[in-house]
Amino acid sequence: MKKADVAKAILADQLFSMPQHSCAEAFAPTNIALGKYWGKRNQELNLPVTSSLSISLDNKGATAQLKINEKHRDDIILNNRLIDPTSSFAKRLIEFLNLFRENEKPNFDITIQSNIPIAAGLASSACGFASIIKALNNLYGWNLDSQELSILARLGSGSASRSIWSGFVEWHAGTRDDGMDSYGEPISTLWPDLIIGLLIFSEQDKGLSSRVAMQRTIETSLLYNSWPSKVAHDLPLLKQAIATQDFELLGKTAESNALTMHATMLSAWPPINYCLPETLLTMQKIWRLREEGLPIYFTQDAGPNLKLLFLKNSLADVRSHFSLI
Amino acid sequence: MKKADVAKAILADQLFSMPQHSCAEAFAPTNIALGKYWGKRNQELNLPVTSSLSISLDNKGATAQLKINEKHRDDIILNNRLIDPTSSFAKRLIEFLNLFRENEKPNFDITIQSNIPIAAGLASSACGFASIIKALNNLYGWNLDSQELSILARLGSGSASRSIWSGFVEWHAGTRDDGMDSYGEPISTLWPDLIIGLLIFSEQDKGLSSRVAMQRTIETSLLYNSWPSKVAHDLPLLKQAIATQDFELLGKTAESNALTMHATMLSAWPPINYCLPETLLTMQKIWRLREEGLPIYFTQDAGPNLKLLFLKNSLADVRSHFSLI
Repeated sequence: MKKADVAKAILADQLFSMPQHSCAEAFAPTNIALGKYWGKRNQELNLPVTSSLSISLDNKGATAQLKINEKHRDDIILNNRLIDPTSSFAKRLIEFLNLFRENEKPNFDITIQSNIPIAAGLASSACGFASIIKALNNLYGWNLDSQELSILARLGSGSASRSIWSGFVEWHAGTRDDGMDSYGEPISTLWPDLIIGLLIFSEQDKGLSSRVAMQRTIETSLLYNSWPSKVAHDLPLLKQAIATQDFELLGKTAESNALTMHATMLSAWPPINYCLPETLLTMQKIWRLREEGLPIYFTQDAGPNLKLLFLKNSLADVRSHFSLI
Repeated sequence: MKKADVAKAILADQLFSMPQHSCAEAFAPTNIALGKYWGKRNQELNLPVTSSLSISLDNKGATAQLKINEKHRDDIILNNRLIDPTSSFAKRLIEFLNLFRENEKPNFDITIQSNIPIAAGLASSACGFASIIKALNNLYGWNLDSQELSILARLGSGSASRSIWSGFVEWHAGTRDDGMDSYGEPISTLWPDLIIGLLIFSEQDKGLSSRVAMQRTIETSLLYNSWPSKVAHDLPLLKQAIATQDFELLGKTAESNALTMHATMLSAWPPINYCLPETLLTMQKIWRLREEGLPIYFTQDAGPNLKLLFLKNSLADVRSHFSLI
C-alpha cells in the first residue's frame, strides 16, 4: 500500500480535482506528546507501533498559505526564507503535495510561518504538515472531516495526525495495513490550569532527525522490545489523569514515558543522546525542586529542549527558577 | 537461606576456628565490568539475575590488613582515616566479618588501603570485600580455593566475586537457591595491548548507591524486562571478542551494555541519572573521535566517571585528547 492509495481512498472522485480558490490558508497547533510516538510498524504510511497521546499548544504552531502560481515550480518560503528546493524538507513537502495533484500541477507558492523553533524537537513538522493539509482542504474545497484530515496529515509526518485539534488528542495506532484506523481523536476534557512551559537550550538543527533516530532504535536497541508494554502501561494512566485532573499522575507518567523513549535511544547503536549539558542540569534541577515540594515535571522529544509541565498556581514559582519562552 | 548458612557450607569445621596468625594481609584488584551486573535474584545472597564479565585492573585495588586486637571493638581505617563505626560502610563490613567469627570475637584492627576513588563507581567495594576475604583466608589458614573465596566475597558485595582474579573474569549467575553455582571464573586469554583508562570527573560520593539504584530499577523500570536478553546477547559477543582479540567488537559490546544499564535507570521512578555534564560531553567527544577514526570506546558504572577502552597503539592519541589518571 502506497501513500497515493490512501489519498485515493479518502478523496475518491475529488482526487486531482480543481482548486476552488486561488489561495487558501490554515493554522495548525504544534503538539507535545505526553505519551510518545516512537517507532513505526509501516514506514511508508507512518503507521505507529503504539498509540500516543498529546496536548496541543493552542497559540504555538504553523500557518500555511497556498497560492497557485504560474512559475512551473513550487516556491517554499519558511519563516520568510526561500527554501532550497533540493533540501530534504522541500523534497518531502513537494512529494506530499504531489499526492493531491496530477503531474505536479498546479504549482504553489507555499508560505509557512511558524512561531516555534524549527527542528528542535518541538514538533514543527507535525504542525507544518497539519497546516498544509488543512490549507489544501480549504483550497480544493474537499470538505473532509477532521479524522480524514488526520489520516492525510499522517502521510506527511506521523505526529501531524495529532495536530489537527487543540487540547488533548489520542492517536490510535490501529491495526489495519491501510492505516484507515490510525488517526487522531480529540479527548473532550479541558484542563485550563495545566501549563506547558518551553525551555529552549538550542534552536540549532538537532542533527539527527527523529525519523532516523526512531528507525535506528527499532533496528538496534534491545530495550525497544519493552517499549510497547511501557506505552500500554502509560496511556491508560494519562487518560485517567486527564479525566480526574490528577496532575501528579499526569506529570509522573509523561516524564517517565519521555525518559523511557530516550533510554531506548541510549541503547541503540550507534548510541543516540539528544541532551546538552543544560538539558541534564535542568533535569537534575527539576528533580531537586520536586523533592523540595514544587509540583513540576518535564517531557522531552527528539531534541535537547525540555517542556515543563505544571499548574497555573505554580507559575510564579516556576518563573523564579526557569526562563520560560 | 542466610549468608551464615553459606559460610557454614563452605567452611564446615573450619567455621569459627582459631586464627593461625595474629595478622594477615591481602590485595585484590578492582574490576571493571564489560558486561554489567545489574539486578539481584536474591538480595540476601547477592545472587544476580544475569551473568557478568569483567576485567581486573591489576595495579588498582585494595590491600586489606587484619590484625587481632584486644580492644573489644573493631577499628576500621580506610585510606588512613578512622571510619565511624555507625556508618553504613562500617556496619556492612563488621556484619561480613561476623559471618566468620563467634560472638563477634576476635576483634580486629582493619586497615584498608585503596588506590582508587571510593564510591565513585570504581568498584571500590568489590576489591574491598575481595581483599578482606583473602586476608581472612590467610589469617585463619582456611586454604580455600579461589572459587570458594569468590562465593564468600559475593556475600559482602556481588561484584567482589570477580575481584579474586586478575585478567578477564566471568561471574556465573547460577540457578541454585543457595548460590553455590554463582561464582567467578577466570578466562585464561590474556590481552596485553588492551588498556583501560580512567576518566575521573568527580571523586565525590555518588549519592545513590548502586545497590539502591539496582533495586529501584528492578522494581519500577519496565525496560528492565529487556535487560536479561541484552546480557544474553552481549556476553557471548564479549567472550568471542576476547578469544579473537577483536577490539571493535569488545568495545562496541561493552559500551552498548553500559549504556543500556544506564538506560534502564533513566526509565526507573524516580529516574536515576549518574551523569555529570562532563560525563555527557565526554561521551559525545568519544563518539565524535570514533567517527573520525580513533578506535576508542567507554564503559560507565553507577557513578559519573568513565572508563576508556583502547589499544596500546592508540595511547598517544588518546592522551592527546583526554587526561587519564
